[in-house]
Amino acid sequence: MKVIKFGGSSLASSHQLEKVLAIVRADARRKYVVVSAPGKRFSGDTKVTDLLIQYARQTIHRQDTTTTAQTIIERYAEIGHGFNVADEQLEPIFKTIRDLPKQAYADNTYLMAAFKAHGERLNAQLVAAVFQQSGLNARYLDPRDAGMVVTDVPDDAQIIASSYPQIERWANSDQILVIPGFFAYNRNGQICTFSRGGSDITGAIIARGVHAERYENFTDVDAIYAVNPSLVPQPAAIPEMTFREMRELSYAGFSVFHDEALIPAIQGDITVNVKNTNHPEAPGTLIKSSREPNLNAPVTGIASSSSFCALYLRKYLLNKEVGLGRKILTILETHHISYEHMPSGIDDLTIIFDEHQLTPELEQTLVQEISAAIHPDEIHFNHDYSILMLVGENMRNRVGIMSRAAGALAAQNIKLIMVNQGASEISIMFGIHDQDADRAVVALYNEFFK
Amino acid sequence: MKVIKFGGSSLASSHQLEKVLAIVRADARRKYVVVSAPGKRFSGDTKVTDLLIQYARQTIHRQDTTTTAQTIIERYAEIGHGFNVADEQLEPIFKTIRDLPKQAYADNTYLMAAFKAHGERLNAQLVAAVFQQSGLNARYLDPRDAGMVVTDVPDDAQIIASSYPQIERWANSDQILVIPGFFAYNRNGQICTFSRGGSDITGAIIARGVHAERYENFTDVDAIYAVNPSLVPQPAAIPEMTFREMRELSYAGFSVFHDEALIPAIQGDITVNVKNTNHPEAPGTLIKSSREPNLNAPVTGIASSSSFCALYLRKYLLNKEVGLGRKILTILETHHISYEHMPSGIDDLTIIFDEHQLTPELEQTLVQEISAAIHPDEIHFNHDYSILMLVGENMRNRVGIMSRAAGALAAQNIKLIMVNQGASEISIMFGIHDQDADRAVVALYNEFFK
Repeated sequence: MKVIKFGGSSLASSHQLEKVLAIVRADARRKYVVVSAPGKRFSGDTKVTDLLIQYARQTIHRQDTTTTAQTIIERYAEIGHGFNVADEQLEPIFKTIRDLPKQAYADNTYLMAAFKAHGERLNAQLVAAVFQQSGLNARYLDPRDAGMVVTDVPDDAQIIASSYPQIERWANSDQILVIPGFFAYNRNGQICTFSRGGSDITGAIIARGVHAERYENFTDVDAIYAVNPSLVPQPAAIPEMTFREMRELSYAGFSVFHDEALIPAIQGDITVNVKNTNHPEAPGTLIKSSREPNLNAPVTGIASSSSFCALYLRKYLLNKEVGLGRKILTILETHHISYEHMPSGIDDLTIIFDEHQLTPELEQTLVQEISAAIHPDEIHFNHDYSILMLVGENMRNRVGIMSRAAGALAAQNIKLIMVNQGASEISIMFGIHDQDADRAVVALYNEFFK
Repeated sequence: MKVIKFGGSSLASSHQLEKVLAIVRADARRKYVVVSAPGKRFSGDTKVTDLLIQYARQTIHRQDTTTTAQTIIERYAEIGHGFNVADEQLEPIFKTIRDLPKQAYADNTYLMAAFKAHGERLNAQLVAAVFQQSGLNARYLDPRDAGMVVTDVPDDAQIIASSYPQIERWANSDQILVIPGFFAYNRNGQICTFSRGGSDITGAIIARGVHAERYENFTDVDAIYAVNPSLVPQPAAIPEMTFREMRELSYAGFSVFHDEALIPAIQGDITVNVKNTNHPEAPGTLIKSSREPNLNAPVTGIASSSSFCALYLRKYLLNKEVGLGRKILTILETHHISYEHMPSGIDDLTIIFDEHQLTPELEQTLVQEISAAIHPDEIHFNHDYSILMLVGENMRNRVGIMSRAAGALAAQNIKLIMVNQGASEISIMFGIHDQDADRAVVALYNEFFK
């Protein structure tokens, strides 16, 4: 049995859905089909999810929603009509769209979550109808019936572990089950979504729950590339990588596969295969628990991200002060902030954060509270901070990687603000200035892949 | 006014003390003379401090102490007789030595502290007598009378800040004050010593207290060298360095000047001059708050130390867990353990400790408590761990230092377990295996100094 997930571009039109149908037909083990909302059909098109967000905002602000609702309906109608799905099957979908503003919601965040989730929910109903129309033994399976229960965070829910035994009851299905991605219900039965792009997460949860032999994740690229293709033309594809490599690369910006989706895959030891709906014969990229070493290719991927910032503080004899680090981390914990790294010198400490967690007000609060607690000689936030990651299982126990990497960056006159190697054996992390980030990625790619 | 401190080898014999006398006479500003206990006169000789430790142990174990006491007495007698100090001035010193076992001590740790402290105490009395005999207007000043009060830790005391206004009363002395190093008294009047080699600390405290223009620290080397002279023959001398550079180098093993002695020097902004008693015309090494940049010499010194160990732990999604670092640091704080560095990856965390703080039992306790608190997938201590430090104020804002350093180490096939750059701008720290440490120092020296 395989779980197979299709991204929005694979489901954007009836033309695309033909390819999906062919892929599902091509392998009888593809019994669990997780779908996103219809994505862009062409450059400049609007994703159904974005239309639904607009629809939700108009509803909240009591604006006229007629045009938006109709635009959404037409997206589903185009797909359904393309497969001659009967109107009596399409009408409930259209009605649900029109009726969305009339439902009761606990507040606007639940309203927004429910509107967005219907992109996937209605698409899964439509795809199930298309599959039936095309002669497949398929049915729609709602996340509620699948057994998925999530935490009560309307726009960033997490699966609750007790869901898995419930999902397991759907193992060894004879029917093709079409399941909407991206959302499930909290214990009160309210819709909560995962973070954006979270259909990957649904697929991984189902794969873990039903003990799938593989989780095929269909998207619109032939493989995950060693480097961002917008920086390097036709970069090397990654044929296989470990979960750890994927997570280290996701961390610094690789977004082909949602990083939260790796957790159920790791927990269930489900091999993930990222493939291309438009080119299903390409082998794609395998993401798995371990792989054979290839000593000729120490580096698997290179990523950079500017979504970090650093809090620098200096205090004489900081490293002799028992409890100083703990005091700082207690303050962070009070504000529910996780830190990424905390390289320390004898008098200096840098704490690196995911910038998304912070606001200017929160930064000011942190500076004030940390100053009051430990009286540093100097303290300030630095936002001109990009993280550059060099990742590879084959870097383990290899001498000379740092030398080559630092040499390639020095040749481009790129200043290293921070270097962190030591916890993970499979990655080296550099802190650099934002304006150097793209050049740095290219320099490392040329060093290790050319 | 200058504070001038002489180490044990400068005071080991009447021959050496002649040199000390000449140095004190050569500069009328040298009014505060801090002395160590007599050190080794020749290779294989025993320092008076070590004789006193033996004397204390024999006393504790009620063994015969006659020979040991007499050996100690002869060391002081040789010096006194060399300067024709009258017997009535020497006899109280000899009597104090003989009577040490008869004094009352709170317990054996205070006994040990008091025995050891008398190496300095009696030597300062003797040196004062020699100075007087030689026509100098000199007197002995006991730490109690100087105003020094320390924390109640018999073998690792710290100065209490309220001592400084008391010491300040001795500023602008007309007389030469000879002050014993290494010890002072707690609030109960009991002798407590600084950590071993702590006469440097006394000198720095006095220098801060009397606002000395300079603290001259006389030892038996012409300068502080860029690298350990036992690894590289005739290495480059360091003409001047900042307090921060000295502290970073002390941290990884540079021991010419006691690292705790830097604290009063920094607090009082007292320039320290490390000089050679046997070669006082050599300029030595200046240690001061700032210095002129020299862009041709980015690196000031290279040090390594094997007195570190690392606690490695791995847990999936460790970096997402708010409060995990704080939990670990709270456990360390409970056991009064300070950590040096904590490089972290996405799933991994390494905590580097000064090994002296740990025992096998304590390590086991930490592993157990941390395991119970955060349930890591893997946790273990690694003792095959040396810290290698590359230090230089001129590394600030320089591109390419990491590249050169990593290149030199890679050329010697030295594996980097850890690289930490980012908090301090003036140092790069490498974690390497113990057996690579000496080769690594030589490789970096050849790269940056040849």
